Amino acid sequence: METPNALTATEAAKRIEAGTLTAEALVASCIERIDAREDVVGAWKAFDRDFALQQARALDKGPRRGSIHGIPFGVKDIIDTADLPTGYGSPIYEGNRPMADAPCVALSLASGGVLMGKTVSTEFASRHPGKTTNPHNPKHTPGGSSSGSGAAVADGMVPLAFGTQTGGSVIRPAAFCGCFGWKPTYGLISGYGVKENTRSFDTVGLYARDLDDIALFRAGVLALPHEPIAEGSLTGLRVGFCRTMMWDRASAATQERIEHAAAVLAKAGARVTDFPLEGPFAGFAEAGKTVTGFEFPRSLTWERTHHADRISDELLKTVLEPGLKVTLAEYQRAQATIAACRAWLVDAMADVDVLLTPSAPDEAPEGLSYTGDPCFNIVASWTHIPAVTLPVYTGPKGLPIGVQFMGRRGGDMNLLAMAKAALPALRAG
Amino acid sequence: METPNALTATEAAKRIEAGTLTAEALVASCIERIDAREDVVGAWKAFDRDFALQQARALDKGPRRGSIHGIPFGVKDIIDTADLPTGYGSPIYEGNRPMADAPCVALSLASGGVLMGKTVSTEFASRHPGKTTNPHNPKHTPGGSSSGSGAAVADGMVPLAFGTQTGGSVIRPAAFCGCFGWKPTYGLISGYGVKENTRSFDTVGLYARDLDDIALFRAGVLALPHEPIAEGSLTGLRVGFCRTMMWDRASAATQERIEHAAAVLAKAGARVTDFPLEGPFAGFAEAGKTVTGFEFPRSLTWERTHHADRISDELLKTVLEPGLKVTLAEYQRAQATIAACRAWLVDAMADVDVLLTPSAPDEAPEGLSYTGDPCFNIVASWTHIPAVTLPVYTGPKGLPIGVQFMGRRGGDMNLLAMAKAALPALRAG
Repeated sequence: METPNALTATEAAKRIEAGTLTAEALVASCIERIDAREDVVGAWKAFDRDFALQQARALDKGPRRGSIHGIPFGVKDIIDTADLPTGYGSPIYEGNRPMADAPCVALSLASGGVLMGKTVSTEFASRHPGKTTNPHNPKHTPGGSSSGSGAAVADGMVPLAFGTQTGGSVIRPAAFCGCFGWKPTYGLISGYGVKENTRSFDTVGLYARDLDDIALFRAGVLALPHEPIAEGSLTGLRVGFCRTMMWDRASAATQERIEHAAAVLAKAGARVTDFPLEGPFAGFAEAGKTVTGFEFPRSLTWERTHHADRISDELLKTVLEPGLKVTLAEYQRAQATIAACRAWLVDAMADVDVLLTPSAPDEAPEGLSYTGDPCFNIVASWTHIPAVTLPVYTGPKGLPIGVQFMGRRGGDMNLLAMAKAALPALRAG
Repeated sequence: METPNALTATEAAKRIEAGTLTAEALVASCIERIDAREDVVGAWKAFDRDFALQQARALDKGPRRGSIHGIPFGVKDIIDTADLPTGYGSPIYEGNRPMADAPCVALSLASGGVLMGKTVSTEFASRHPGKTTNPHNPKHTPGGSSSGSGAAVADGMVPLAFGTQTGGSVIRPAAFCGCFGWKPTYGLISGYGVKENTRSFDTVGLYARDLDDIALFRAGVLALPHEPIAEGSLTGLRVGFCRTMMWDRASAATQERIEHAAAVLAKAGARVTDFPLEGPFAGFAEAGKTVTGFEFPRSLTWERTHHADRISDELLKTVLEPGLKVTLAEYQRAQATIAACRAWLVDAMADVDVLLTPSAPDEAPEGLSYTGDPCFNIVASWTHIPAVTLPVYTGPKGLPIGVQFMGRRGGDMNLLAMAKAALPALRAG
């Protein structure tokens, strides 16, 4: 028999509402899974079983609070929590206890969620990795920077989790670990109380093992009524096959899977056309690097001033110090290039409903020191459009390969509906 | 003889660099001014003389750090500081001590600034006022939400200070108190570590008693080389006289002063044309209110959940609770309207170099319960363009009236140059 930790959030929420499952039993089952697997997976930075069980018991006794009543969720450790330490993935913040929860956490708790713990982040949501391994093979990276959230959800330790994406930090770990990841339209979920990397790109996102769970969690996080994902059809759906400028960086297996996905969608009735990124996109990758270069080292000024010795060389020497050489004029030109790409995309997407693209260049790389290449995630991150990754394929190494859909700015629910319509066909393959 | 506290930051920095003034003497002089006037003005929420003097002595002994070496600055209390409490203008955060300085503070300290103290903010940078009075007449409001920063700088307690603007919270207090205020292009100064009101609009800004000081402070805050304001000419300058949709809300005296400013600029060689706000601006004021309505109560979820009894009725009943009724569709439509206004403005400003507009509808209102109407500040705040207010006029009640210039997005230094070119003519009247 399935243990409660393996249920989707949607199913668990239904059972809790019907009285056939308690929040306490669900949380206890997740704790059991964590106890069994944490030594290998290392998804958690802070985890307090008593605190989790205490929340669950209170919810079982009280009135229904909202869409995720009784459902445990993990919080990436760069997001502030008042009841658990918040380390921002850095030894500098060991033991840091913010006074308040970030709005996204407070909104989840107000909707009945159970704060299960803080999940491992790379250092300041940049590259330097934490302890987390890929739940499918501990010799491989889980991706980053939301390493612990992707791994914890994919491994069944918790049905829901928060991540953040500046380059590829929500979609990539989801793809590598084999769960769903949603990077919403920029600004949709409040980013206050989230340690800043590059404010112009930073976006809070969600993880789940089921697409409907994303909508359930979304309702809680936004303090909106639960709007289930609409039932859609592939017939006539206009799919832009977006290989991006980075197609050559995708492995043969990934190229083959995404080409296959395009063929499957076409066979199921979608109108699939090539969607090359042109015009200002020639300068896109360089421009985004310049924007991060200008913003990130300024954002970490207090840390650079007082604790430079506890910043990794990887971050200090290869990101922050070069970034400080970016001039304001270069930064402003780069922002103008990104703005031009956003406008170009709005026009180009007038003829398509959704973009199909890889979630990552390959299966999760071997080793834990490199969290992988975000090259297929920067388009959505920097142009502010929503993206979702669907865990539908497996690669030659037996690790997950995701399929990424990107939608129109603000059209997040429509994007989820198109993904949901595509999912059965993609899974049937 | 002029006491050091009355010096501009530019002059004080020159003397400190030349060795004819010490940071300690400057800080001591500011402390003396605070001691003499704080009982009446009430600009400070947290002020630690020993801490300020200690920083000054260390700077006097050490190497020159940057553009504001030895210059004291005030920090609006919604901005995080590690060494002084950060109360966000709310009793909920009494005694709150963040672990780190906000980047804007850390950058100022890294450039040699002396953190003088925390200045009074209205509650969460909204309407409910603090204790500060107008330095020109304690029966009148200093404006808000950056009440203490505007008053402290105008009163000679400190040459520089940080404010933030969501609606009119930098420009209005500067205009009411009679100093310079600069609301930069949205996003230019890092907003991390600044308590969020409405992320889509929140902008960190600066106060000074001299326009050149703004450029000096800007260099420190942005970790850029000091770029003095360019010398410009009014000849041929294309000035758009922007009465906005709110002209009827301006007092006769304000209308008269701003009309006079337009005439003075024209007489000095500028080409002044009417610049009405048309097209999408019909829905602008309502749209901005809707955006804040959606974002602000979500941002304060932790406070609403745990400390609703310590949120003012003014905020809870007239802002947060109505805001929670805004639907996502209404929010997205409002964001689209604001985006259309931004685009409209870019096109319309192709034919002008700068916009001239009132800084506030009138002199500072009598009484301390109402910080005044931000109606002439929302255009710059919500469309993300830079604005600066110049303290050039006095009204019939003997209180300051400011002249506001607004420039192109990203063209902040150019805006300051045009303001500097206009200043002598406006002052000569």
